[in-house]
Order: sequence, then C-alpha cells, then structure tokens
Amino acid sequence: MLWIQRTIELPAVARGCHLITSDVVRAIPELDSVHIGLLHLFLMHTSASLSINENADPDVRRDLATALDHIAPEDLPYTHTLEGPDDMPAHVKTSLMGVSLTIPVRAGRLALGTWQGIYLCEHRNHAMRRRILATLFGQPR
Amino acid sequence: MLWIQRTIELPAVARGCHLITSDVVRAIPELDSVHIGLLHLFLMHTSASLSINENADPDVRRDLATALDHIAPEDLPYTHTLEGPDDMPAHVKTSLMGVSLTIPVRAGRLALGTWQGIYLCEHRNHAMRRRILATLFGQPR
Amino acid sequence: MLWIQRTIELPAVARGCHLITSDVVRAIPELDSVHIGLLHLFLMHTSASLSINENADPDVRRDLATALDHIAPEDLPYTHTLEGPDDMPAHVKTSLMGVSLTIPVRAGRLALGTWQGIYLCEHRNHAMRRRILATLFGQPR
Repeated sequence: MLWIQRTIELPAVARGCHLITSDVVRAIPELDSVHIGLLHLFLMHTSASLSINENADPDVRRDLATALDHIAPEDLPYTHTLEGPDDMPAHVKTSLMGVSLTIPVRAGRLALGTWQGIYLCEHRNHAMRRRILATLFGQPR
Repeated sequence: MLWIQRTIELPAVARGCHLITSDVVRAIPELDSVHIGLLHLFLMHTSASLSINENADPDVRRDLATALDHIAPEDLPYTHTLEGPDDMPAHVKTSLMGVSLTIPVRAGRLALGTWQGIYLCEHRNHAMRRRILATLFGQPR
Repeated sequence: MLWIQRTIELPAVARGCHLITSDVVRAIPELDSVHIGLLHLFLMHTSASLSINENADPDVRRDLATALDHIAPEDLPYTHTLEGPDDMPAHVKTSLMGVSLTIPVRAGRLALGTWQGIYLCEHRNHAMRRRILATLFGQPR
C-alpha cells in the first residue's frame, strides 16, 4: 500500500475557470507507480473550487463562469460584505462546486474520461496563490 | 487490504434523474467481502452527474430535474452552443452536482441511509451510454 | 493500515448552516494516530448537506443559507409537495451541495486550510437528529 501526500502551489489566476490537469499530473510523478488507486485533491481555501469538466473548448470554461455568476449573483441581501461584492458569491460558489475531488488511478495514470479535465475555478476578482493538498494512495505496480 | 476496480456500463437513459443503486450493487459483488471500506464511483463524462438523493418517490427525481433546469437555464448568453442549447446547461449541472461519489461500505453492504439512493442524472436530450469507473477498497471480512 | 468507522449523532439544529468541525474532531480521537490518511464523512439523509466553508464570521453561514433559498426557491412547479414547501427545495440543495466530504489527515490532525470549517447545512424547517457515518483510514504514525 502506497501513501503520498504533497502540497501543490498554484500561481494566482484571473477570476474564472482554468484547466490544471497537467499541473496536477506533473506535481505527482508517483502516479506512475500505482496499479489501482485514488488521487484526492483538496483545495485549502473558501473562495475557489475544484471541478471536473470539458477539457477541449475554452468557451466552456468561460460559459461556466457566466453561469456561476447568474446562479450566485452579487446583489442578494448579504450581510458579509466587508471584503467586497465578489466575496460572498465566492463562498456560495465554493459550497456549490466543492473544494475536493477524488479521481481514480489505473495503471500509472489518472483514469479521466476522454473529455474530462481538472478545473480550478477562481471566484475572487483579485486572485491569490492557491494551495492544493494532494493525497495519492493505492496498490503499487 | 482489498482493491477492486471495474467499469460499469449504463445504457442510454432519457434526460432526467434515474435511480441506479441496484445496477451498482449488482456490478460489484465483491462488496460482500468488505468489512470496513469505501466504494468510489466516477462517471467518465462531462454532461451527466452522479448524486445521492431520495430513493422512494419518483416525483423527487422529476422535481429535481425541474429545479436543475431552473438553476441552469438554456437562455444564458453562452458562446459554446454548437452542440445544441442543452449542451452548455449540461456542463453547468455537471459541475454543480459533480461526477463522483464516495460511499461507505460496512459489513458487506453499502452503508446508505434508509432513504438514500444513487442517482444518474442525464443532462442531455439525446442520451448516450454512460460509463462509471468503480473503485472498491477496504478491510476484508 | 488503519481503518475506523463510527457513527456521529448530531442533535437537531435550526434550518441553516452550522459549524461542526469540533464535533467531528471530538468524535474521532483516532485522528491522532494517523500519519497520512483521509477522513470520509457521509451524512445519511436526503434533506441536509455537508460542506466546507469559512469558519470565522457567522454572517457567512447566514448569507449562504440566504443564497441557497434564492437558488432553490420554494415556488417552482413541484409535484412532491406532501411533506411541505420546504421539502423539495431541501432535496435540491442536498444534490447541489452533496452529502459527503473527504478531508486529508496529516500528522494526527485534519489538514484543513486556515479559514476552512466543516458545515452541516440543515435544509428543513423542523429539524431532526442527523447521523454521519465517519470512516477514517490511513498510515499509522
């Protein structure tokens, strides 16, 4: 049984959804040594999310951000407004999408579907660096 | 420590939410040999979701689909429209609900609550077969 | 390899989001004996959710409940209405937020970010006791 735990530091990105599959794979070379297992990704923040969605057309990422702004608008009667009008909607989006993913590993690779990629969705206007705590566990090859 | 990984093929279903608990249990007979463990289900697609919700009244599944259409409507100003008006809302619903579930296993059975069942929510009008990669791991009995 | 599985009983709470991090930690003293691992929490119900969000300002919990009521309103054309107008929106919120969390464990502690806490979001007006099935697994220290 193999257990690896490591922090992945992501640079600040613009508000919106960003494909980070290759950043994740590059940060965990031990994926290669797993026969059957799981990779757990945990974003250690409350105003950004991890998600799995379409990996090909950048318009999907833009349209997803448009939809999130529609679903969690800035003009609801919020009380927690000290950190700006984008802050409380960011918390709402975080709870809707979630901050963690569990992805199967098979024969040394992430077993994503053909069209699936890992998204970091940054919900704040003024981004900061984001940290993911990655935990890989499984049967060694 | 037991590790099993297997693909579950689901036939095409109509748009909406469908109870698939028994399909999942039937596909993983090794559940029976687990004392304490987890079953991870990973849907390898970007326009359908897995969820856990009420297993008794079919109206709940219908009403959930109604609510999802309200939450992620087709008439937002989307750019990614080539695959039809139901495509981008399908991607949005996928990120809201997620594509994976982790369910506890106890004494050889899925430890679901009395009213809980596993849903496949198909977000596209013209369905296709869907694949779940199931990973079972735990302490053998 | 360590495996612990235990039910956590939570008393009935008012509709809304509640911080339960310390209840969870107190219920699983074996966290202390894990070097690298994961804690899986599974809420065995269909009208309440688990989530991770901001652990400091109670206004965030109130505003999140406000946003959930906006996103899943009571006045949609629902069929499943026998259990009251808050019931079907509760099922919708449950599928949006989810009923389970997987949290990394590192050196005997939950590896939450500085501002992260565990929320129980009760979606019903008349609350009942809620049960979480917790599964802890990992490498012993």
